[in-house]
Amino acid sequence: MQTVKVALFSSEQDRSYPIYIGNALLEQVDLLLPHLPQKRVAIVTNTTVAPLYLDQFRRALERHGICSVAIILPDGEDHKNWQTLNLIFDALLEQRCERKTTLIALGGGVIGDLTGFAAATYLRGVPFIQIPTTLLAQVDSSVGGKTGINHPLGKNLIGAFYQPRMVLTDSATLTTLPDRELRAGIAEVIKYGLIRDADFFMWLEQNITGLITRNADILNKAICRSCEIKAEIVAADECEGGVRALLNLGHTFGHAIENAMGYGVWLHGEAVAAGTIMAANLSKQLEFINESDFERICSIFQKIGLPVSAPKLSPDDYLSLMKLDKKVEEGRIRFILLKRIGEAMMSHDIPASTLRETLLTCMANE
Amino acid sequence: MQTVKVALFSSEQDRSYPIYIGNALLEQVDLLLPHLPQKRVAIVTNTTVAPLYLDQFRRALERHGICSVAIILPDGEDHKNWQTLNLIFDALLEQRCERKTTLIALGGGVIGDLTGFAAATYLRGVPFIQIPTTLLAQVDSSVGGKTGINHPLGKNLIGAFYQPRMVLTDSATLTTLPDRELRAGIAEVIKYGLIRDADFFMWLEQNITGLITRNADILNKAICRSCEIKAEIVAADECEGGVRALLNLGHTFGHAIENAMGYGVWLHGEAVAAGTIMAANLSKQLEFINESDFERICSIFQKIGLPVSAPKLSPDDYLSLMKLDKKVEEGRIRFILLKRIGEAMMSHDIPASTLRETLLTCMANE
Repeated sequence: MQTVKVALFSSEQDRSYPIYIGNALLEQVDLLLPHLPQKRVAIVTNTTVAPLYLDQFRRALERHGICSVAIILPDGEDHKNWQTLNLIFDALLEQRCERKTTLIALGGGVIGDLTGFAAATYLRGVPFIQIPTTLLAQVDSSVGGKTGINHPLGKNLIGAFYQPRMVLTDSATLTTLPDRELRAGIAEVIKYGLIRDADFFMWLEQNITGLITRNADILNKAICRSCEIKAEIVAADECEGGVRALLNLGHTFGHAIENAMGYGVWLHGEAVAAGTIMAANLSKQLEFINESDFERICSIFQKIGLPVSAPKLSPDDYLSLMKLDKKVEEGRIRFILLKRIGEAMMSHDIPASTLRETLLTCMANE
Repeated sequence: MQTVKVALFSSEQDRSYPIYIGNALLEQVDLLLPHLPQKRVAIVTNTTVAPLYLDQFRRALERHGICSVAIILPDGEDHKNWQTLNLIFDALLEQRCERKTTLIALGGGVIGDLTGFAAATYLRGVPFIQIPTTLLAQVDSSVGGKTGINHPLGKNLIGAFYQPRMVLTDSATLTTLPDRELRAGIAEVIKYGLIRDADFFMWLEQNITGLITRNADILNKAICRSCEIKAEIVAADECEGGVRALLNLGHTFGHAIENAMGYGVWLHGEAVAAGTIMAANLSKQLEFINESDFERICSIFQKIGLPVSAPKLSPDDYLSLMKLDKKVEEGRIRFILLKRIGEAMMSHDIPASTLRETLLTCMANE
């Protein structure tokens, strides 16, 4: 036998990237220019966002000598699949987009995840920029390089870690965001306080009205602090070997809810809200947090108008949906729990009876 | 405007991996064990290879306490597409394969590329091992981490760079390889001599009969030297920013031939053989190599029984197919040329008339 070694040490390349956050940044194309290897980009957006921001953005690009191709997809979580991904590939090939053509995601989380996955796999990888236009995408999905699509059996089961070259967050785009989506996005903002920053959580409790009424300063501060926390965690653990898993507070339950109800029926943030209550209930049962902490958590979600009860399913249905989660190991489901408000932990060892109790307690009665 | 930085420096991780080459290695499961994070693997193979080697391999795994799931795909280049990839995902999910379940590709280049791409994207990445069973896969596609699928508009247009944990090359599997596929695989072996090692090319000229008649020692030496050259090039340039492109000698023409004829009609190695003659013809026209070098190159492919003429198409059809190649930049096609036998170079600047002359000269007359 002979052995040949393929010697692959990580390249020295610095893949760090900036997130620019502010009001009316969409036309500040000078922020993008240093990140474009070619004076041609492909903008991927959807039928909801295109009429609002596409022309404005393309004209701004044109003023800087950048020509663009637009790919307009149908809107909604139920389009986050192979078929839609293939629409992107077909358009990129028809338009002769090359390895140096940058893909720009202009839209919410679905557009960002689809475009990022397309960028990761088109010609084995092309440059990618995120311009998130929903609160959820601005505080969560546009940062950190998780990309992917859903499979009929579960959410985000197919995908890649693929980092953008930059993120441009124009909080002015939130003025056109439907109220329900704004509220769903706040669920992820609250998550950052719960897992990492008790002071931020308290600030959110005090400023919840400002968030809901879209006070620009309060929104910018909330987005910025959320991105800081996410950036810190992603830098420590890019591919979710450890601490990054804490970002999934409420998500194991939440994904089961989204899957059970059919993608798009519950918004992701709504499912995360109910899922976070379930995780908090588990944490309370295990005596990490007390009743008053639990009440604070329920109360903030209620004030936002987010669901605090899970849809009624049999506990076995929940368990079998949760076992489809990406993070199952040797058949055991991984849960993110709250040690206290401002600190999360991971556990693979939740007694079955405790979990069942949480499922039964947290389900809506009707 | 505020800026948050996502600080991502390359991880320190050493992703180097071994290629084990020898006779009757398939049952040497002890070579695999150190690379399996879980005592469970999913073997992806096809309807041709499964009856030959699957049971033998699974029994060997079982003797070492490794349980396996088998996913048997239809055979052939025309199945290297989304539909077949989805068959893998469906099976992995139905069998509850997890992030630590290793995917093992047991088969030729199509199986390796499909399985590698599935491993790169299932749950955003799971461990992957290559067990190539064709000469082409053993000397080329199993090494270096290129994975992917074809698109109706072109070959390997969708994919990822994703390295295996190890490659296990059992040259005994070549005893069952159809003669036509053996000969097609030799085309890639010759490529290594042409681009990097004139002595190896000369050794191949002298040992061509031994290769065709499957002399075990000669095959092992050819595989080993091919893997050494590929490993060296991949280590220097994992994601094809530069020198790795030289491995594509004959491939820009070759992919156009495969695409024009319909995937699977010409074997990849056959298309590469004709494509290499075309690249050699270009190199001769540009006065890098002389007539006698060109004749040596034609002669070795002829002795193997590989095509030295391209199928008859209009030059414009060739050009438009070649422009679908992944490596087109600003609309210009990239060619790999021979400076001399044993040294290749890249060029974006081939005069249109020279290219047309090569296309017309190298096409079959009938």
